[in-house]
Amino acid sequence: MIVLIMKKQILGLLSDFGTKDGYVAAMKGVIYEISGAITIVDVSHDIAKQDVRNGAFVLATAAPFFPDGTVFVCVVDPGVGTDRRGIVVEGKRHLYVGPDNGLLMLSAQHEGIKHVYEIKNRKYMSQEISATFHGRDIFAPVAAYLAVGTCLEEIGQEISDYIVLSQARATIEYRDISCEVLHVDGFGNIITNVILEDLKQIGLKSGDLLKIQIKTQVLNVGFLETYGKTQPGEFLALIGSTGFFEIAINQGNAAQKLDVSTGDTIAISRNSLSPYKKHA
Amino acid sequence: MIVLIMKKQILGLLSDFGTKDGYVAAMKGVIYEISGAITIVDVSHDIAKQDVRNGAFVLATAAPFFPDGTVFVCVVDPGVGTDRRGIVVEGKRHLYVGPDNGLLMLSAQHEGIKHVYEIKNRKYMSQEISATFHGRDIFAPVAAYLAVGTCLEEIGQEISDYIVLSQARATIEYRDISCEVLHVDGFGNIITNVILEDLKQIGLKSGDLLKIQIKTQVLNVGFLETYGKTQPGEFLALIGSTGFFEIAINQGNAAQKLDVSTGDTIAISRNSLSPYKKHA
Amino acid sequence: MIVLIMKKQILGLLSDFGTKDGYVAAMKGVIYEISGAITIVDVSHDIAKQDVRNGAFVLATAAPFFPDGTVFVCVVDPGVGTDRRGIVVEGKRHLYVGPDNGLLMLSAQHEGIKHVYEIKNRKYMSQEISATFHGRDIFAPVAAYLAVGTCLEEIGQEISDYIVLSQARATIEYRDISCEVLHVDGFGNIITNVILEDLKQIGLKSGDLLKIQIKTQVLNVGFLETYGKTQPGEFLALIGSTGFFEIAINQGNAAQKLDVSTGDTIAISRNSLSPYKKHA
Repeated sequence: MIVLIMKKQILGLLSDFGTKDGYVAAMKGVIYEISGAITIVDVSHDIAKQDVRNGAFVLATAAPFFPDGTVFVCVVDPGVGTDRRGIVVEGKRHLYVGPDNGLLMLSAQHEGIKHVYEIKNRKYMSQEISATFHGRDIFAPVAAYLAVGTCLEEIGQEISDYIVLSQARATIEYRDISCEVLHVDGFGNIITNVILEDLKQIGLKSGDLLKIQIKTQVLNVGFLETYGKTQPGEFLALIGSTGFFEIAINQGNAAQKLDVSTGDTIAISRNSLSPYKKHA
Repeated sequence: MIVLIMKKQILGLLSDFGTKDGYVAAMKGVIYEISGAITIVDVSHDIAKQDVRNGAFVLATAAPFFPDGTVFVCVVDPGVGTDRRGIVVEGKRHLYVGPDNGLLMLSAQHEGIKHVYEIKNRKYMSQEISATFHGRDIFAPVAAYLAVGTCLEEIGQEISDYIVLSQARATIEYRDISCEVLHVDGFGNIITNVILEDLKQIGLKSGDLLKIQIKTQVLNVGFLETYGKTQPGEFLALIGSTGFFEIAINQGNAAQKLDVSTGDTIAISRNSLSPYKKHA
Repeated sequence: MIVLIMKKQILGLLSDFGTKDGYVAAMKGVIYEISGAITIVDVSHDIAKQDVRNGAFVLATAAPFFPDGTVFVCVVDPGVGTDRRGIVVEGKRHLYVGPDNGLLMLSAQHEGIKHVYEIKNRKYMSQEISATFHGRDIFAPVAAYLAVGTCLEEIGQEISDYIVLSQARATIEYRDISCEVLHVDGFGNIITNVILEDLKQIGLKSGDLLKIQIKTQVLNVGFLETYGKTQPGEFLALIGSTGFFEIAINQGNAAQKLDVSTGDTIAISRNSLSPYKKHA
C-alpha cells in the first residue's frame, strides 16, 4: 500500500493594504508563481494604515494558533524606500518575513527568537524591484522560497541589531494598576497591556468589583470570567481570549461608549466597598 | 496507470468577527493544525455583530451551492459563556457546527435535518478553552475533526430540543401581502420574506404593476424578471437570486433611497390601474 | 521513483459584491462543486459598485503577477439581464471570464489578446440560471470548467466585436501634461494615467520639482523615487508600483487632503524655479 502524506505548507499574510486594491492579490500571484503547493491564509489586511504596533498586536494574537513551520509574511511598512532593512526571523515555531521595524518581533518574542537574518540575496527577490512595494517584490518571493524549503542562511547574513518595539508594561503601585490600551477590537472590546499575573499581584480574583478610571470617567465593574455573567448592555472586565485584561460591554461596544482608543491610559484598582452582585 | 483522485474537504467559515482582528485567522490556524488537507472558504465575516438572524440568512443563501459533505463552522454567538450549548447539525447535504441559537438552522432546515448532536467530547476541543472564544477553542477543532472523518456520534449525544428561530412568514389577505425585510444586501437591494408562491396566490405575474407601501411611502413598481428591464435609476421588484422577492433600483441603492432596514414592514398589492410600460 | 507534480490550477475572483453577503461564497461553492483541485484567490470584492472602470484597473494591477494559465472570473455587471453577452478572453498568459462590458479588456490588452469567445454552450452553465446573478450561474461554472481543461472552442463561437473601454490618454502640449485620476488607492495615493514615457517627453527626471494643478490648488512637488525620500506628511510625486504616475503624501492620505477622486483632471508641468531640496 502506498500512503501519500501531503504536507501542506501554510503561508500567513498580514498587511495594512485593505481589500479594495489589487496589492494583496499581486503578492499572492507572486507566491503562487513560485509554488502552487502553498496554502495562503489571510491573517488580516485591515491593519490601521502604517500602524506597526497594531500589526504586531494582531499578528501576536493569531500566530500562536498556526502549525509549526508556518511562514508569515507581514507588510506594514511606512519606511519602504528608506534604508530600513528587510529581515527573516526564525522563531522557535514559525518564520517571519517583513520589514525591520518591530512588526514581526512581538509575535517572535512570545515564541522565542532563534536567529534573525537580513534579506540580501537578490536571487530570491523578483526580477524587477519597485521602490515602493517591497511586499510584492521582496518579501512575498522570499517567503515563498522559504516555504518550499530554501535554507535560511541562503537569504542573507545573521544580524543582532534588529529593531524591537518598546512595550509599555502596566505599572503596579500598592493596590493600583496603571495601564494602556493596546487594541480596540471589532466588537469594541478595550484590550489593555495588563495580564492575569498583574491582577493577582494586587490581590484581585474573579468576582471582585473593580474601580476603573478612563479619562474623566469612573466605572465600577465586575471582574468576571465571561460576557455571559452579565446582562446585555452591562460593563464587565475579564481576561479575554488574547490573554489580556479587557473592558467590555456584554453585546455592546465599550470603546465607543467610553470614547477610548489605542494608547489611552487606564487606572485600575480594587473596589473594596461591595462585592459584585451576581446575576442568577 | 495510477489515477489519484484528490478529494478536497471543504470547510466554510462564517462569523461576525470582521477582518481587522486576528480572530478569524486564529480559527484557521487551529483548523490547519488538525489537518492540512482542508480547503477553507470564507462565507462571510461581516455579519452584523451579534445578529444571529443576519448570519442565518447569509448562510442560507450560500450553503446550497457548496458540494455535499461541506462542513460549515459558524460563529455569531452572543451567548458565549452562558449555558447555551454547542451543536453539530447533520443536514441531508452538509454538516453545520456552531452555537445552539438558531444560527445554523435556517440553512439546515432548507436541506432537511437528519440529526442534531450536542458537542460534549472534550477530546475534539482545544487543550485550553477560553471562556469567550468557543469559535477558536471548540467549534473550529470539532469542525476540523469532522472534516477529516470523525464520526458524528463521537462528538456527543443526539438532542431534539435545539433552538429554531421563529420566522415571520408573509401574510396574505385577499389581494394584499404584508411582509418583512429579511436582509438589505451590499447593493441596497431590499430582500423580503415573500416567495414566488405568495405572489402567485394574489394572481401576480411578471410584467404586472405593483403598489408597494413602505413606512409612509407608496411606490408603483413593475414586477419584472431582471434589473435590465428598467432604466438605470428606476425602481423595480423581482424574485432575486436568493429566491426571495426584492425591491431594487437598477444600478442604484433602494434601501438607502427608501431608508429601509432589516425588520421593517412592507405592504404589497397589485395595482390594477395600468400595465407597466415596458422599455424597448 | 515516482515523482508527483501537483499542478494547482489558480482561479482569480474579482467582483463588486462586497463581503457582507453570501454572493462571493455562492460562486466559490459552484466552483468547488465542479472541481476540488482549484485554488481560488480573491483579487478584490470591494470594487466600487457597478464601476466597470475601477474593476478593470484593479484587475490590471494584479493579473500580471499571476502564473500563466490562471483563469480570472470577474463580475462587475450593471448590464446583467440585458442582452449584454458573456465572454471568455484568451490572453497570451491568462484566461478571463465575465461580462462583455470592457471589464476584462484592460488587463487582456496589456498581455495581448489571442481570441475572444461568446459564452453560449448551455452545458457549462448551472442547471438553473437566475436572471440577476450570472456570476454564480454562468461565469463561475464556465471558469471552473476551463480551469479543469475544457477547450475554449467548446464554450462558444469566436467574436471580434467585443467592447473595449475608451481610455483617456494623458495629453502633452509643449512642457505641460494634462491627465486624469485613474484610481485612488486605499492609502489615498492619487494614481493618474501618466506613464514614465510621458514624463520623459517633457524632459522630467527624478529629483526635479513639479508644479501640479488640481482643481484650484497648485502644489510644488518633488518627482522622487519613493516615499522615503521625503519627511512624513510631505507631498511627493512618483512612478508607483502599478507603473503609473502617482501623487502621494508620505505616511498620509493625499486624495483626502486634496479632495480628489477618480476622473478628476490634473495638470503637470516642470517647475523651473528651483531644484528640489533633498533631505539627508
